[in-house]
Amino acid sequence: MTDMAGLKPEHFQWQVKDRVAVIRLNRPERKNPLTFDSYRELRDTFRALPYAGDVDVVVFASNGGNFSSGGDVHDIIGPLVDMDMKELLAFTRMTGDLVKAMIGCTKPVIAAVDGVCVGAGAIIAMASDLRIATPAAKCAFLFTRVGLAGCDMGACAMLPRIIGQGRAAELLYTGRVMSADEGHGWGFWNALHDADALEAEALALASRIAAGPVFANGMTKTQLNQEWNMSLEQAIEAEAQAQAICMQTRDFERAYRAFVAKEKPVFQGD
Amino acid sequence: MTDMAGLKPEHFQWQVKDRVAVIRLNRPERKNPLTFDSYRELRDTFRALPYAGDVDVVVFASNGGNFSSGGDVHDIIGPLVDMDMKELLAFTRMTGDLVKAMIGCTKPVIAAVDGVCVGAGAIIAMASDLRIATPAAKCAFLFTRVGLAGCDMGACAMLPRIIGQGRAAELLYTGRVMSADEGHGWGFWNALHDADALEAEALALASRIAAGPVFANGMTKTQLNQEWNMSLEQAIEAEAQAQAICMQTRDFERAYRAFVAKEKPVFQGD
Amino acid sequence: MTDMAGLKPEHFQWQVKDRVAVIRLNRPERKNPLTFDSYRELRDTFRALPYAGDVDVVVFASNGGNFSSGGDVHDIIGPLVDMDMKELLAFTRMTGDLVKAMIGCTKPVIAAVDGVCVGAGAIIAMASDLRIATPAAKCAFLFTRVGLAGCDMGACAMLPRIIGQGRAAELLYTGRVMSADEGHGWGFWNALHDADALEAEALALASRIAAGPVFANGMTKTQLNQEWNMSLEQAIEAEAQAQAICMQTRDFERAYRAFVAKEKPVFQGD
Repeated sequence: MTDMAGLKPEHFQWQVKDRVAVIRLNRPERKNPLTFDSYRELRDTFRALPYAGDVDVVVFASNGGNFSSGGDVHDIIGPLVDMDMKELLAFTRMTGDLVKAMIGCTKPVIAAVDGVCVGAGAIIAMASDLRIATPAAKCAFLFTRVGLAGCDMGACAMLPRIIGQGRAAELLYTGRVMSADEGHGWGFWNALHDADALEAEALALASRIAAGPVFANGMTKTQLNQEWNMSLEQAIEAEAQAQAICMQTRDFERAYRAFVAKEKPVFQGD
Repeated sequence: MTDMAGLKPEHFQWQVKDRVAVIRLNRPERKNPLTFDSYRELRDTFRALPYAGDVDVVVFASNGGNFSSGGDVHDIIGPLVDMDMKELLAFTRMTGDLVKAMIGCTKPVIAAVDGVCVGAGAIIAMASDLRIATPAAKCAFLFTRVGLAGCDMGACAMLPRIIGQGRAAELLYTGRVMSADEGHGWGFWNALHDADALEAEALALASRIAAGPVFANGMTKTQLNQEWNMSLEQAIEAEAQAQAICMQTRDFERAYRAFVAKEKPVFQGD
Repeated sequence: MTDMAGLKPEHFQWQVKDRVAVIRLNRPERKNPLTFDSYRELRDTFRALPYAGDVDVVVFASNGGNFSSGGDVHDIIGPLVDMDMKELLAFTRMTGDLVKAMIGCTKPVIAAVDGVCVGAGAIIAMASDLRIATPAAKCAFLFTRVGLAGCDMGACAMLPRIIGQGRAAELLYTGRVMSADEGHGWGFWNALHDADALEAEALALASRIAAGPVFANGMTKTQLNQEWNMSLEQAIEAEAQAQAICMQTRDFERAYRAFVAKEKPVFQGD
């Protein structure tokens, strides 16, 4: 295990405190667009997280009242227009690799979304495990509006499982904004909070999860992905194995001893 | 590519205007039941749509205040009762082929539903990409009420992904009517409109989508189906490939040029 | 076929009346926890149900104001803490086998939930086909609170398909209680009823389904499971076959004859 608190990313803000890492895109004056460099650096950071000894939960926060405006028109879309197929596929695979790295990072990721959350920004929110937002959150899978398909970084697979196939189809075909109320009612946002409370709520949720049995949390995350397209019978056998592993952790015994002693369990993550 | 504006179907109404095709079952006095012939002709029409040069979006409209009463009792159910297994399977495969053709037609399909929408009519709405309805829409997967299973034309696979597994199970086991409000709250209907506005709203939505990058829209439709039972990692790679293809369309460049010029993009579908 | 009305289970209550079986855990003074013995006996009972000639629908009822508090801390969790991996996997597979048996029992299962419904109790509700509850129902997938993962008995596969991926993730990562209103709004509960009406409503729903074409109902249940991870095209072909089978039942003909005679069909289950 390697500690990641000392990480000094160039293309986003990074902070680790009390086992919770906070990521924040750092161009608030432009609503936090993504660039080739920030994609790459985010991908590499999420890829390193499974080995991080000092991070149990990640909060992907907003900055300056916005989450992210997605791929920058000048920095990303302009160059893409001139690329050949080999280069284009290298780019779309790199963006997909960010989502794969988020899914595979074994730590729950909480998106805390204020303001603009569109394009690849909406994808980052979608690929997080939990999502909270403000009433001002404007989320749009606007790929169709820039001449592209809705199938970007896993959206045609993931969005229907979060909000239902019909609602997902509408957002992907029209690129329209999903209002905060819609997103909450549809299960995209787990909760709405006022802007001045958003980050504190995200951190409180992160702390609550980080105070739990984090090895077992990681297994929950693994299985939510792993069972995506298993049969039910396969999923049940996979969970029998995964849960048996968790039953051999000390955290399981700690919970039992605490219960018997009428105390609150103190989990250690092993 | 072949133009389909001149199509003269015998068993339903067909009209193409401004790249939007409108289908309407044509026995309003009987709430638009389906027959062997209309099943077949609808299947063949949707099978031809991928090659249509003049249609980008399909609206499946109501007629005379109703969408469809499903398979006609006298024209379909009566004969089925006397068929042997070979004939029955030929029939159920033909009805399934209509759904497969709708899914595979590469153009978004919008169901505009007023009044009765039951049995195979409910399936046609379910198999559409988007669904809008009136407050009077009465949708029922009533197969159980005619002695059959809820697994008709893909319902046990598709309905749970639209409204959730528990609600789908209730509708399929009981055959009860889903009210318009339920259907809207559950994500079956994308929106509700008054009856006198329904078709105009459907056409406006169709026009809006047809004004987008229709090649990319077709890729969205393909991937929503294609990724149905992929793993997440497979889906992300599939989208990397699909989106890279879309990035080589002129529509993608058109959107970029328009953005730089601060203009609205005019997409051409290539 | 064997009749099951005479079954005398040791570890839960069992009653068969009018083709509806009612199961009730029988330690209401402790909110109906599960034990090794009751798991085993429930599994064996659901495994016998496909061959029961006198049961068409199952109601899993509450007792003394509660549904189930899940695996008993003293009777189950204590012993698990001391088991080796072989024994642990034998246990998790046995609990998974209960869910497999519920899914495979070919008869619809209706959970009628009042009060506490947590841990393995929440899983039993989740694995039922339909779920009704009282406003006092408190459902929690609290595995994380006892040091375990949310992947228990199929939860990471099934819960997302019922309430959506994001809401499921929240419940599984936090172990928090889902209120009755949340559960109803999210599609976990099909309906809410007052406590004094709950069981009558469950029995009425069961009777209504039992009065339908029960062979075809069994096919609906089979296909809801069978198509879980098929492609859409595979699911449509599977339904063509399954429905063709149902079209050769006498119940299908009975429905047709009744319709022609303007009578209510009387289904016989063959």
